[in-house]
Amino acid sequence: MRAARLVGYNRPFEIDVIPDPVLLDPTDVIVKVGAAGFCRTDIHLWSGEFASFHEQAGIEALPFVCGHENAGWVVEVGAAVQHIAVGDAVLLHPQGTCGYCHACRAGDDMHCSAPIFPGLSAQGGFAEYVRSNARAVVPIPPELGPLDVVALADGGLTAYRAVKRALPLAYPGTTTVVIGAGGLGHIGIQALRALSQTEIIVVDRNERALEHALAWGADKAVLSRSDHSHVAEIRDHTNGVGANVVIDYVGEGGAELEAIDMLGPNGVDIVAGYGGTLIANIQAKLLTPEASVVGTIVGTYNELVELVHLTRRGAVKPEWTTFPLEGVNDAMAALEAGKITGRGVLVPGNGP
Amino acid sequence: MRAARLVGYNRPFEIDVIPDPVLLDPTDVIVKVGAAGFCRTDIHLWSGEFASFHEQAGIEALPFVCGHENAGWVVEVGAAVQHIAVGDAVLLHPQGTCGYCHACRAGDDMHCSAPIFPGLSAQGGFAEYVRSNARAVVPIPPELGPLDVVALADGGLTAYRAVKRALPLAYPGTTTVVIGAGGLGHIGIQALRALSQTEIIVVDRNERALEHALAWGADKAVLSRSDHSHVAEIRDHTNGVGANVVIDYVGEGGAELEAIDMLGPNGVDIVAGYGGTLIANIQAKLLTPEASVVGTIVGTYNELVELVHLTRRGAVKPEWTTFPLEGVNDAMAALEAGKITGRGVLVPGNGP
Amino acid sequence: MRAARLVGYNRPFEIDVIPDPVLLDPTDVIVKVGAAGFCRTDIHLWSGEFASFHEQAGIEALPFVCGHENAGWVVEVGAAVQHIAVGDAVLLHPQGTCGYCHACRAGDDMHCSAPIFPGLSAQGGFAEYVRSNARAVVPIPPELGPLDVVALADGGLTAYRAVKRALPLAYPGTTTVVIGAGGLGHIGIQALRALSQTEIIVVDRNERALEHALAWGADKAVLSRSDHSHVAEIRDHTNGVGANVVIDYVGEGGAELEAIDMLGPNGVDIVAGYGGTLIANIQAKLLTPEASVVGTIVGTYNELVELVHLTRRGAVKPEWTTFPLEGVNDAMAALEAGKITGRGVLVPGNGP
Amino acid sequence: MRAARLVGYNRPFEIDVIPDPVLLDPTDVIVKVGAAGFCRTDIHLWSGEFASFHEQAGIEALPFVCGHENAGWVVEVGAAVQHIAVGDAVLLHPQGTCGYCHACRAGDDMHCSAPIFPGLSAQGGFAEYVRSNARAVVPIPPELGPLDVVALADGGLTAYRAVKRALPLAYPGTTTVVIGAGGLGHIGIQALRALSQTEIIVVDRNERALEHALAWGADKAVLSRSDHSHVAEIRDHTNGVGANVVIDYVGEGGAELEAIDMLGPNGVDIVAGYGGTLIANIQAKLLTPEASVVGTIVGTYNELVELVHLTRRGAVKPEWTTFPLEGVNDAMAALEAGKITGRGVLVPGNGP
Repeated sequence: MRAARLVGYNRPFEIDVIPDPVLLDPTDVIVKVGAAGFCRTDIHLWSGEFASFHEQAGIEALPFVCGHENAGWVVEVGAAVQHIAVGDAVLLHPQGTCGYCHACRAGDDMHCSAPIFPGLSAQGGFAEYVRSNARAVVPIPPELGPLDVVALADGGLTAYRAVKRALPLAYPGTTTVVIGAGGLGHIGIQALRALSQTEIIVVDRNERALEHALAWGADKAVLSRSDHSHVAEIRDHTNGVGANVVIDYVGEGGAELEAIDMLGPNGVDIVAGYGGTLIANIQAKLLTPEASVVGTIVGTYNELVELVHLTRRGAVKPEWTTFPLEGVNDAMAALEAGKITGRGVLVPGNGP
Repeated sequence: MRAARLVGYNRPFEIDVIPDPVLLDPTDVIVKVGAAGFCRTDIHLWSGEFASFHEQAGIEALPFVCGHENAGWVVEVGAAVQHIAVGDAVLLHPQGTCGYCHACRAGDDMHCSAPIFPGLSAQGGFAEYVRSNARAVVPIPPELGPLDVVALADGGLTAYRAVKRALPLAYPGTTTVVIGAGGLGHIGIQALRALSQTEIIVVDRNERALEHALAWGADKAVLSRSDHSHVAEIRDHTNGVGANVVIDYVGEGGAELEAIDMLGPNGVDIVAGYGGTLIANIQAKLLTPEASVVGTIVGTYNELVELVHLTRRGAVKPEWTTFPLEGVNDAMAALEAGKITGRGVLVPGNGP
Repeated sequence: MRAARLVGYNRPFEIDVIPDPVLLDPTDVIVKVGAAGFCRTDIHLWSGEFASFHEQAGIEALPFVCGHENAGWVVEVGAAVQHIAVGDAVLLHPQGTCGYCHACRAGDDMHCSAPIFPGLSAQGGFAEYVRSNARAVVPIPPELGPLDVVALADGGLTAYRAVKRALPLAYPGTTTVVIGAGGLGHIGIQALRALSQTEIIVVDRNERALEHALAWGADKAVLSRSDHSHVAEIRDHTNGVGANVVIDYVGEGGAELEAIDMLGPNGVDIVAGYGGTLIANIQAKLLTPEASVVGTIVGTYNELVELVHLTRRGAVKPEWTTFPLEGVNDAMAALEAGKITGRGVLVPGNGP
Repeated sequence: MRAARLVGYNRPFEIDVIPDPVLLDPTDVIVKVGAAGFCRTDIHLWSGEFASFHEQAGIEALPFVCGHENAGWVVEVGAAVQHIAVGDAVLLHPQGTCGYCHACRAGDDMHCSAPIFPGLSAQGGFAEYVRSNARAVVPIPPELGPLDVVALADGGLTAYRAVKRALPLAYPGTTTVVIGAGGLGHIGIQALRALSQTEIIVVDRNERALEHALAWGADKAVLSRSDHSHVAEIRDHTNGVGANVVIDYVGEGGAELEAIDMLGPNGVDIVAGYGGTLIANIQAKLLTPEASVVGTIVGTYNELVELVHLTRRGAVKPEWTTFPLEGVNDAMAALEAGKITGRGVLVPGNGP
């Protein structure tokens, strides 16, 4: 098959013909890739930031096939797989899980004790075919195709899980601040709007992103300024009380510190973005207000199914720009330059 | 192998030599039975009450091997099974589950859409060997053996799940009524005591059972009387307010109606026993007090693991009486006569 | 002041001039009535159904002023009241509470151990002035007036509390059945739509009510038929699985029995309507599916505040028809005849 | 009355005769002090650390009566108080609350928008009488007296609330680390043992405190060492996985950083001690493990009632050492020197 491979750090991806993936375990599945999302993490991989992780995860050295946000059609299933069939259109949860450990039993997929993560700890989806695990397979409803849902698999799911954690706190009359109206915020703001009537205040450094945020359902847009005056603006807007919840899709560059300062009593800071370091005086920032900081990563299989339902209902509309497999380096350049509308998606073939 | 088989309704079990079970699916396991609990449901099977269910479940007609509460040692595993090994001492959750449906993904094992239930919908454990599914296998900690935990698998788990549902409501200062100090109550009262400081009031028709209940940790024992005066006794004891929770391990013979009458505001009636019919005036019994009635059945895999932990810590001590496989009819006679202390357990062989 | 009084059961209300209410306790408030909702319970009062309750609640015999759904302007406050001021526009939670008992401390207003309920256990709001308790007072936001929110106080709150209980169960991909698209359903359907993306199926005997239901946000409308075939229709629609939640705003006439039959595994039947009797075989209807039946009544003060927020945001739009105080008998006749659009509301004066 | 007053920072308390407190509001109560706990916060007050807070809270300058952990007998109640009577033995929740704000309505006493805090923002209990608010009054059960429960009011409640937050996470089979076996840990460990079967590992720098911890119900005691090797010891003990919950009763001196390092997947760090600053790399410490940090302060009125129930049942036994009012400076010296067994308690009079 054709695959876009990382053959050396900081060098262009190469399109190579390599052997098709084969079933290794009775619970494996092979999927013909219909759409493969290009994630910021792929840039980290490309630049060698995860080089040490490659080794730690026990996978072979370069050349490597990236792509952990995949959708397509099942072409082969292992002997133990009965609930899906060849030909099914499917979205792949990024992590394949064992189904036996305590975490899997509790529906807590990301903490499976024996996972595989194609595109990270195994060969990924920037190719005509990808191998994953039967427990990663989410059926795509007939109204939708791989392109419609592929952006939900990783970034969308991360955004949605943060929203799910916010919902019990975001009842009518509350204020929820969303930091970051980019790739994650794009899905998160729509989902929060569809599932609550909390007042949504979006904070971003980019004026145009704020305009989008209002269109996605935000009640108020606040420009993030280098003098941090937006923090006081939000406290003032809430009569000095602070927000009930902050969803931080940025997690670096100062956002991770401002998030806590925006909270009111019993406030919860849900952190989904990363890069920074949390620093908080315990008495002033955590105890007296009884604040919480909650880390969240990707999401569960069932949460991904829920998110597909939101898209099927039209409540969450992902945006994307397609590239052919051979356009992988164009996609990366566009992503780095911030010139892609919505998710950049590779389309390696032409249908099932 | 030797097996105790039901060859005709209302006739003695026969000890027959039949073929050993074999692996049918890559996720199957074969377990050498070290202990098989004899449950009241087996009497229902024996008397033909489930005859229609047999057909509905698509299993062959008699002769049939009962036994759905099994523990022993793994002797063979399917090709897709990696997390357990031949020789492991294991307790079997009564239901083997698929691991793929929404319920399994949510840790909600009893609502798996493609389950098997050995001893009910498949050949059970009144035999030297039994076949189940790898997702049913609970490792037995080294301090314990099959006999120590076998009674937890079905009856114990049912009792424990009811307690788990009660715990958030049974904070210090509350009153919890447990109806029935028999097979379920035996485990339930110990677990409730180990995990709460709610005032536990046990109701039973049997004076001796009430003595046991106090030894298991109940704070107060109330005799169930045919004139229903125990309901008023409990209301009086709570200053006319009623109990916060009732766990009904009986569910028939009038208990199912009295349970609701014992509740106070926001009271919850957790029903684990069955046989009766709930009849409740909606305004008086449900709306005005904002009462709830919650049905519960068996329990999840993770709950069974928790219950094994309670036994390992000595917080829940199951009681049992053993019989050899050939003593199956003696066991049933003793069970029917109410002469067994704790669970009746068949021991088909002599160790791993 | 002028008051519409019940002077004899089953006789027309009379408009009498009676003394204004006065402060009795330091926490009392007197409110000039701007709008008083006319509830079906008032018909029950009128017809003498609650005669025994009158005595039990220790209030004087007839003549009696009905009206438990009141909004207006504060005209006088007791010595212990500091958080509200004369002139404030307010909605009254139907029940005034003590603020000291365990229930009040837990935000569980309806189970206050020392409540007053104007219009039921004290003189109500079919008059120019009404006395209540400072803890019942909900400030009306400046964008709204008494008429905009009065229907929320009792019927609306009852509908909303049921929805609040449903929300954790009504995640994307689930199905929620709402039985009854009348006074309660009118608010409940809008609130459920505003706060979830569950598939909402509304069941009603009235074709026109079903049309309204679709306009309020329901996904599907099902006619309740005397042959009960709508139950099977709903089960078929959910592929035989059943609904995740049923909200029963009817609670009589057979709805209370059909509700449980519409449920799937772990299904919850939230009952807010009354009149009927729940009858359910424990094994088949509660245990095997692990179903729950949850009674709910009115709601908490904080829930009423949330509901006012939903109306302020335009997410829940109550409908009403006004009558002058002197039109009280017209209002009752119209209500009995089912000819009122939305809530019938008495307007005793002309502004603050 | 006689009162021990702070007349200058870092100077001995003086015993002065000052006017008795009087009722100011209709909801006030005057309590004859039977026991007044001496808290570490009183040392902070004495040393002037809260001088700025004094002003901010609008209270008069020194001289000031400390004492925020009080129990005794009601001697006078305001006109609006009906649920308690002169002569009642009572424990005072440290914070008197308004009963009207959203927080009070939700049972969230510590975030009342109009609180009083005798001994901090008003004259306290190191005196013969103290004034508080009727909503702060917890009846003492007849089996107990002021001395038996006084230590529960502030330190005990803080410890208990942290345990309450841990309980849903601390199911059988989990591991909970408690950092600090001193004043808070003393109550917290007993409460956690009484309400769970989680494996309790206690960490302290003091060998003798660890011995006590085992007596209070801990399963394992680990010495906190300056080389931080106890963190690795705990990770090893949990097979490298980490703990499910850490309750940090220290919150300074490095404990606040080690707490997070002891957590496993989905781990929650409940912080009740203070003084330090939390520093955590977001990706490594919060996102990847999906860890949470939860600040907690004092507790609710209903939680204090629960804790009194635990003491009434003998499940939580506070320890204390009494001093007469005139011994206030001895008490402080002993507290500073770490020579008090349990809580230091002033007993200003001789009974009710």
